Amino acid sequence: MLPSILVLNGPNLNLLGQREPELYGRETLDDVRRLCEREGETLGLRVDFRQSNHEGVLVDWVHEARGTAAGLLVNAGAYSHTSLALHDALRAFEGPILEVHLSNIYRREAFRHHSYVSLAATGVICGLGSEGYRIALQALRARLAAAAG
Amino acid sequence: MLPSILVLNGPNLNLLGQREPELYGRETLDDVRRLCEREGETLGLRVDFRQSNHEGVLVDWVHEARGTAAGLLVNAGAYSHTSLALHDALRAFEGPILEVHLSNIYRREAFRHHSYVSLAATGVICGLGSEGYRIALQALRARLAAAAG
Amino acid sequence: MLPSILVLNGPNLNLLGQREPELYGRETLDDVRRLCEREGETLGLRVDFRQSNHEGVLVDWVHEARGTAAGLLVNAGAYSHTSLALHDALRAFEGPILEVHLSNIYRREAFRHHSYVSLAATGVICGLGSEGYRIALQALRARLAAAAG
Amino acid sequence: MLPSILVLNGPNLNLLGQREPELYGRETLDDVRRLCEREGETLGLRVDFRQSNHEGVLVDWVHEARGTAAGLLVNAGAYSHTSLALHDALRAFEGPILEVHLSNIYRREAFRHHSYVSLAATGVICGLGSEGYRIALQALRARLAAAAG
Amino acid sequence: MLPSILVLNGPNLNLLGQREPELYGRETLDDVRRLCEREGETLGLRVDFRQSNHEGVLVDWVHEARGTAAGLLVNAGAYSHTSLALHDALRAFEGPILEVHLSNIYRREAFRHHSYVSLAATGVICGLGSEGYRIALQALRARLAAAAG
Amino acid sequence: MLPSILVLNGPNLNLLGQREPELYGRETLDDVRRLCEREGETLGLRVDFRQSNHEGVLVDWVHEARGTAAGLLVNAGAYSHTSLALHDALRAFEGPILEVHLSNIYRREAFRHHSYVSLAATGVICGLGSEGYRIALQALRARLAAAAG
Amino acid sequence: MLPSILVLNGPNLNLLGQREPELYGRETLDDVRRLCEREGETLGLRVDFRQSNHEGVLVDWVHEARGTAAGLLVNAGAYSHTSLALHDALRAFEGPILEVHLSNIYRREAFRHHSYVSLAATGVICGLGSEGYRIALQALRARLAAAAG
Amino acid sequence: MLPSILVLNGPNLNLLGQREPELYGRETLDDVRRLCEREGETLGLRVDFRQSNHEGVLVDWVHEARGTAAGLLVNAGAYSHTSLALHDALRAFEGPILEVHLSNIYRREAFRHHSYVSLAATGVICGLGSEGYRIALQALRARLAAAAG
Amino acid sequence: MLPSILVLNGPNLNLLGQREPELYGRETLDDVRRLCEREGETLGLRVDFRQSNHEGVLVDWVHEARGTAAGLLVNAGAYSHTSLALHDALRAFEGPILEVHLSNIYRREAFRHHSYVSLAATGVICGLGSEGYRIALQALRARLAAAAG
Amino acid sequence: MLPSILVLNGPNLNLLGQREPELYGRETLDDVRRLCEREGETLGLRVDFRQSNHEGVLVDWVHEARGTAAGLLVNAGAYSHTSLALHDALRAFEGPILEVHLSNIYRREAFRHHSYVSLAATGVICGLGSEGYRIALQALRARLAAAAG
Amino acid sequence: MLPSILVLNGPNLNLLGQREPELYGRETLDDVRRLCEREGETLGLRVDFRQSNHEGVLVDWVHEARGTAAGLLVNAGAYSHTSLALHDALRAFEGPILEVHLSNIYRREAFRHHSYVSLAATGVICGLGSEGYRIALQALRARLAAAAG
Amino acid sequence: MLPSILVLNGPNLNLLGQREPELYGRETLDDVRRLCEREGETLGLRVDFRQSNHEGVLVDWVHEARGTAAGLLVNAGAYSHTSLALHDALRAFEGPILEVHLSNIYRREAFRHHSYVSLAATGVICGLGSEGYRIALQALRARLAAAAG
Repeated sequence: MLPSILVLNGPNLNLLGQREPELYGRETLDDVRRLCEREGETLGLRVDFRQSNHEGVLVDWVHEARGTAAGLLVNAGAYSHTSLALHDALRAFEGPILEVHLSNIYRREAFRHHSYVSLAATGVICGLGSEGYRIALQALRARLAAAAG
Repeated sequence: MLPSILVLNGPNLNLLGQREPELYGRETLDDVRRLCEREGETLGLRVDFRQSNHEGVLVDWVHEARGTAAGLLVNAGAYSHTSLALHDALRAFEGPILEVHLSNIYRREAFRHHSYVSLAATGVICGLGSEGYRIALQALRARLAAAAG
Repeated sequence: MLPSILVLNGPNLNLLGQREPELYGRETLDDVRRLCEREGETLGLRVDFRQSNHEGVLVDWVHEARGTAAGLLVNAGAYSHTSLALHDALRAFEGPILEVHLSNIYRREAFRHHSYVSLAATGVICGLGSEGYRIALQALRARLAAAAG
Repeated sequence: MLPSILVLNGPNLNLLGQREPELYGRETLDDVRRLCEREGETLGLRVDFRQSNHEGVLVDWVHEARGTAAGLLVNAGAYSHTSLALHDALRAFEGPILEVHLSNIYRREAFRHHSYVSLAATGVICGLGSEGYRIALQALRARLAAAAG
Repeated sequence: MLPSILVLNGPNLNLLGQREPELYGRETLDDVRRLCEREGETLGLRVDFRQSNHEGVLVDWVHEARGTAAGLLVNAGAYSHTSLALHDALRAFEGPILEVHLSNIYRREAFRHHSYVSLAATGVICGLGSEGYRIALQALRARLAAAAG
Repeated sequence: MLPSILVLNGPNLNLLGQREPELYGRETLDDVRRLCEREGETLGLRVDFRQSNHEGVLVDWVHEARGTAAGLLVNAGAYSHTSLALHDALRAFEGPILEVHLSNIYRREAFRHHSYVSLAATGVICGLGSEGYRIALQALRARLAAAAG
Repeated sequence: MLPSILVLNGPNLNLLGQREPELYGRETLDDVRRLCEREGETLGLRVDFRQSNHEGVLVDWVHEARGTAAGLLVNAGAYSHTSLALHDALRAFEGPILEVHLSNIYRREAFRHHSYVSLAATGVICGLGSEGYRIALQALRARLAAAAG
Repeated sequence: MLPSILVLNGPNLNLLGQREPELYGRETLDDVRRLCEREGETLGLRVDFRQSNHEGVLVDWVHEARGTAAGLLVNAGAYSHTSLALHDALRAFEGPILEVHLSNIYRREAFRHHSYVSLAATGVICGLGSEGYRIALQALRARLAAAAG
Repeated sequence: MLPSILVLNGPNLNLLGQREPELYGRETLDDVRRLCEREGETLGLRVDFRQSNHEGVLVDWVHEARGTAAGLLVNAGAYSHTSLALHDALRAFEGPILEVHLSNIYRREAFRHHSYVSLAATGVICGLGSEGYRIALQALRARLAAAAG
Repeated sequence: MLPSILVLNGPNLNLLGQREPELYGRETLDDVRRLCEREGETLGLRVDFRQSNHEGVLVDWVHEARGTAAGLLVNAGAYSHTSLALHDALRAFEGPILEVHLSNIYRREAFRHHSYVSLAATGVICGLGSEGYRIALQALRARLAAAAG
Repeated sequence: MLPSILVLNGPNLNLLGQREPELYGRETLDDVRRLCEREGETLGLRVDFRQSNHEGVLVDWVHEARGTAAGLLVNAGAYSHTSLALHDALRAFEGPILEVHLSNIYRREAFRHHSYVSLAATGVICGLGSEGYRIALQALRARLAAAAG
Repeated sequence: MLPSILVLNGPNLNLLGQREPELYGRETLDDVRRLCEREGETLGLRVDFRQSNHEGVLVDWVHEARGTAAGLLVNAGAYSHTSLALHDALRAFEGPILEVHLSNIYRREAFRHHSYVSLAATGVICGLGSEGYRIALQALRARLAAAAG
């Protein structure tokens, strides 16, 4: 069976393409899902793509990923900056974790400069739009291959 | 059809009238709902009055309001001070948003002085008890009339 | 005799309508005075509407209001953020005090987020333009009625 | 009927025994539940033991405890440090509240040193592992006896 | 001719005896003036006792004191904490300056703990009510005697 | 021979029962000593109960405990918040250390929220009055049994 | 008619030459006025030179300058560091504004390093004594010429 | 028997007259003791004048004063700024407490601007040299007379 | 001619593979250069790979890239956190800029959490080792293609 | 021989006229050099105009100026805000030093508000574009004349 | 008679060799005393070597050294970071003072980075273990020789 | 061959003896070099003594020292306080590193209290003038002997 990657999208990402398109572009989250699934096929990864506006649901999903997913791709949106609970959940996940942000969060408001997810992630990719997701999947693939050695 | 206003009440507001009445008064949230509905009738507004203790539910409701509600009245309680997710959701709503607090939050503990909702709201009304809701509906009415102008 | 409301306007409000109209609108302070007087007539309130650029004059007027005015409506402009003297004067006034700001001060520069007036006021209304004055008069009316109960 | 104690466990505590065992030990949350139930039997307390990763659910449960539970034992995990909503809910509970942490939070990362739960709790016990739960039940028992006294 | 002491009282001190009597006592500023004048007679000092709510007037009076007054007694009220202009004026006065506060400002709100007047004064007396004025006059007398040597 | 526990009480605890009884209760330190001795007998622990107002004496006593005491119970009062010397002494003690506070220090002045003792202690118990001492002895007993295990 | 420049001098500048001459030099404000008037004649500018210790008066004068003065030269003394009201007034002036300080404020006490006037000024000149006024007039002249261009 | 005043002098005050005379003057602590004793005789107060470099000894003496002294005069030197233990002891003393400093601590290093003694004292006198002690005794006398009423 | 990418490596990166290999891995900078050149060939990019320990040299090279390079890949090492000069240089470059860090800087010392390069970059990739360079080249390629689009 | 002025330009000023022209104008650094040389001729000053992106080179040049230059004109660009080394070098220069910035740095990002150069300079001129250089040369001329007096 | 050096050791240094040997080494304080005495003999200095856990005792000893000791070597342990009283005592000592720390305090916890002793010392030596004492004696010797010059 | 010590001197140290001699003494850097070379001969160390005003050059030299020098003596002047790049280079050096400052940096401006070099150094010596260099060489010698042990 193909190794599985859980792709987690946090609050307000369901509005992608509708909200502040000058910042986030015109692609919808569905477009991003398809892009990830296609890339997953290319890389030999099963992509499980989800979104929730609920901090607790995101925590639950990270727990669920323990034992079922080989790696995580996390764009936690606003919860990146406020959710210590999500951070603790990620710390309990053993595979590689890539944090992705569509925009460059360091060029935005000060309250977006600190990310609890970054403290628990293997790596961070931001500012590359949906391309960041595709790249993160490749990086996860490479990490899994290296670990499988 | 009458323009609709979504009235969002955040965590612990369901206890209104029971909790710290010297601070919040003896009215219940149901009293406030009725007051809003009556005022809505007077103003020609449909009032959709809700409460949740769940940050994610509040975010979902704001999303739902896009396209269905003409304006928002938000008393996000404690989430005013901690929820960047709610702030981001509000930023994606296009109509007027009035923030209401029953008490004067600037005379309370320091951690209630900053509100993420204020950063996204059109205006703020606080310290006027349930009267603040009635006033906010009037102000929303006036804004909608002006916009329709 | 009708109960009297002293409406205090702080520094630079005399320029209203001329200065940064995209922020403060095109109404002049005279327009706001007329709006308040009309609303006062409707509500059965005598409106005493003043403006000064002098911190000391504003303090004097608040003192003068003790015993002559039933309530205060205060838009202290820049002194909201710097005048502890005004704050102390307001603390010595026994009737209800409504703070009004034309713009939403929480969306502006950081040095406008803290208001000494808020620490002494009954309630705060901001971001509603001159409409905020009208609403504040109504709220003061309601407070006086309740107190007279 | 025996007085009831609601034992609330916050996010990630369901992973107890699996996650960072060098910090939290090898007991599972089920072990802690059994330990609490046994201790409850000894002390003549009905123990209602729950866990959730959802801030809103924890708030709901605290509300539910009003009128049904005689005391609260709260290990809110990461929400201790971020949830003002939970704090407000606890402030509306009238019986004694004991905050418990398995580890000594003051020897961990700086962002775990401040707890909103502590601001609303009767007392705090931390660093004693699952033994802290047993001790907290005893302390609650003693408080209830004294109050009944 | 007797040496003269200018006694400066800042904003809101004209309300003394009427405002927050549990904090400031029931004496009026006129009582304090008489107390100072009597003490002045005893000590052989001419007392020039003034009050203003205007920062600029206080600055003007300090300038006026240069060359006419032998010493200053300053209770600048709220301007103690905000007026750098008054501080600069006091720095240009060459005789002794005693700062007086009726209440113990260090036990009050944090924004009253720092005083610009203290940075320019010879000494500070606070928390002793109107007695503090009498004591300050004695201390000024002693300083002038010592200087006259 | 029974294992010994050194119970250290810091500054002002000798006034217990006389000072701020609404905060600390009416029990005297002698009552607490007796409570600890009785509990020690029950648990098979020798209790050596001391109090000093001198930081250096507390440090000396911690040193003395190395090799003679099996565990420490420390209520360092005000020195909890200011004594790095005591912290360093505790870091050099090898057995378990329980920090106890009669009141919930996190609900008091900000300068009592940080404790140097917490940084060196095994666990912390606060807000439970003298009951906290009894509980701490039990917890120390359990730790010693487990270690001996 | 010649273009007019309003030269505003803030609190304590009337003492120039008398106060701390090692810092501010021995020239009086009258000397500076004459220097400005002479320079104005050379440059073809009408110089209106004023001083006040009153924040409100300075604000009034800035308002008065709207429509009558082509440019402003502002040495607001201590009000540079505390007066948001003056800052707001300057923001409403449309011509060029030059801020001047006699001393280098960045080498003095920390509370003189931040200037609200700087936030509203076109340019800043400090540390050059009364020469700074002359230079500022030249720079204003150049700006007006360029604008008239 | 005459009411007794305990005069407490903290660390390094035994060096008075020898250390930094340009700051503290040339009087010795013995001179100050004699001045206090003479003033005590005049006022009908028994003066118990002590000095210690030991924080714990100062705390012990404050405890001892409970029941034996009618008032306290405290110059705690460096411990003013670091001793929470002394602060707590003073809070447990019921008579009036006057804090005295020889120099004006607000014009010295920043770490001398905050005093824990001020938080517990009735009043504060500083910057008046040994004269401050004499004045403080008078003020204590007045307080005791008023209380005896 | 192929579009050129300037790859800038900052201070200490010449030690790669020799210094803290547990943090940075065992690859040398030469290995990274070869990896970039190979990837460049694949992507149709000319890779100009440089390293300097001199802030000024890095600034010079960024200037040089204006007009010659189509994009920048910047791993500025320690200068990321201290060099405002480099930041200003990057702000003057018009093509896309990718910031790369080998390690996850957000999990390291606090002084590495802020990057001046991030404020000027299009996107940031960190924590992926030398793989991050390869990915960044791909992302630059994609950006250039889109712009050429 | 004419007295010489060393004009130092820091990082990125070589891009003047090309980079952010809306902020810095369209003049090139060469234009500024010519303007300075012409002004130097008028004033009887030899102008030595240099630019470097290297902090160390700027420090070397300041050292070189000791004994050869009569005054310094320094626009250190980004190094103004980060270079303590340059500050120390300037402190060792004995003639007058004028700091110049083309833009008003106090209206830009917070990290440009503090300048180490200001702490060592005689005076500061900012916000006047290249005109600031000309003015600074005049002010240096005046200073030298006065010193030669 | 030989000049005398007082060597002061602060709290917990009596545990040297027993406590955290990986940090402080295995030498005991007695070993350090002997090393100092031997070095003293070599250098012609009488070494008076003491240790106390009591802040007040250390202050007393510094006072005692006035007039009897030619220099001080101070390792104040934890009191370095908290004792303003010790700092004031050292400021009153006229000979040279060398501060010594066994470990490099700047690589340890943040609360050890600031030392009140450093503010009063001639020089500081840290991180060299007991060798630091020997070196400090040599440096004191050199200072005394130079002063005797 | 003798073990070699690289002695690094940072910016402005080339001016030693000429700049602020009251702070740094009258010795030149050449005097210090000779003192180090003489001491090196005594200790059997080859001393390689260098100075640069360029951060990058200092970094290059530290790299060069890897494999060629047995120890480092670093007086980085102003770069001590600003150069993270130098810190990182030092962290990659494996032998002992002694930081030396001529003056006691903790008694100077606040911006000199923190040193990045201290975070990477074995030990720190400051305030002893050029004597500090000699002592540091001895300490390095002792360290090398011990390591060779």
